[in-house]
Amino acid sequence: MTEAIKNIMERNSCRDFKDTPLTQEQLKVLIETALAAPSAKNFQPWHISVVTDKALMEDMEKETVAVLAAGDDKTFYERIMSRGGKIFYDAPCLIVISSNNSEWAHIDSGIMGQNIAIAAQSMGLGSCYIGMMKVPLNCPRGEEFKKRLQFPEGYTFAIAIAVGTVNTGKEPHELDFTKVSYVK
Amino acid sequence: MTEAIKNIMERNSCRDFKDTPLTQEQLKVLIETALAAPSAKNFQPWHISVVTDKALMEDMEKETVAVLAAGDDKTFYERIMSRGGKIFYDAPCLIVISSNNSEWAHIDSGIMGQNIAIAAQSMGLGSCYIGMMKVPLNCPRGEEFKKRLQFPEGYTFAIAIAVGTVNTGKEPHELDFTKVSYVK
Repeated sequence: MTEAIKNIMERNSCRDFKDTPLTQEQLKVLIETALAAPSAKNFQPWHISVVTDKALMEDMEKETVAVLAAGDDKTFYERIMSRGGKIFYDAPCLIVISSNNSEWAHIDSGIMGQNIAIAAQSMGLGSCYIGMMKVPLNCPRGEEFKKRLQFPEGYTFAIAIAVGTVNTGKEPHELDFTKVSYVK
Repeated sequence: MTEAIKNIMERNSCRDFKDTPLTQEQLKVLIETALAAPSAKNFQPWHISVVTDKALMEDMEKETVAVLAAGDDKTFYERIMSRGGKIFYDAPCLIVISSNNSEWAHIDSGIMGQNIAIAAQSMGLGSCYIGMMKVPLNCPRGEEFKKRLQFPEGYTFAIAIAVGTVNTGKEPHELDFTKVSYVK
């Protein structure tokens, strides 16, 4: 088992970060590994917003809670409130991947995200994908948030990943081998 | 720089594999790292077909060439013919990710794909994403191929990745730092 395989197998979604800021060197590595991701025909249909602006993160978090509280379906609202009303779990850094609407943009954005997640794990950091960020970005204040996040014109939210020092961790998921077919 | 970060930065798309079969241990690791990928709400909207059936791969390859040769736009046909009429580049193993049509299926499939790519790189193997596989899967013989690949009912092609021993390699792409915004 290589170090990378160990990192891949031990990675789990951290939902409780310490507030410790990432170092400039850690940020640099996360950005470089993100940009090293392959994309269909090397079109690189993505943009990354490296967010360390805590006020913006808190603003989006509060907006998410407000939007979900006002909705008919309270499932997600209750889930978030059970996590202390947080969607970024106090992470000191959020990397938001936006993309154009080309054919492979979401596959490519997932590929990029996992470079970040594995690089973080290998540096002893935790990470968590934040799909819930679609809520503030699709609400009436969405255009304002996109502007503050510096999305390029016409780009939309693909996925985000929070990165930071783990406060409390958890075990990786069990593997589900029923998801595999062998075509020999 | 950790071993995983080195693997991420050195990974490149291999388009010339040796025909050497993967060992059972290598296949096992690739499958396990694939299944260790995170997915939105842990829904795991995917299925993987681990293809070592060379006859099936050659059949899909020939069908791809035939479909593209018959099309009006010859761009992809010419690109493939410049690569010897190959879309799998003689790889001994192809892992095909199919997915249901849920909201995060393509993001999640990209995440899974990159676990495979990095695990392969860390074991000294090469890999290449094969988006071109959409051609045989969307042609009139598509249903036949999906059946042979054992896609679950209603699942569609997300992405595939060829894995094997590198015959001739190449350098990774340059990083494009214009794709980054810093939101401080």
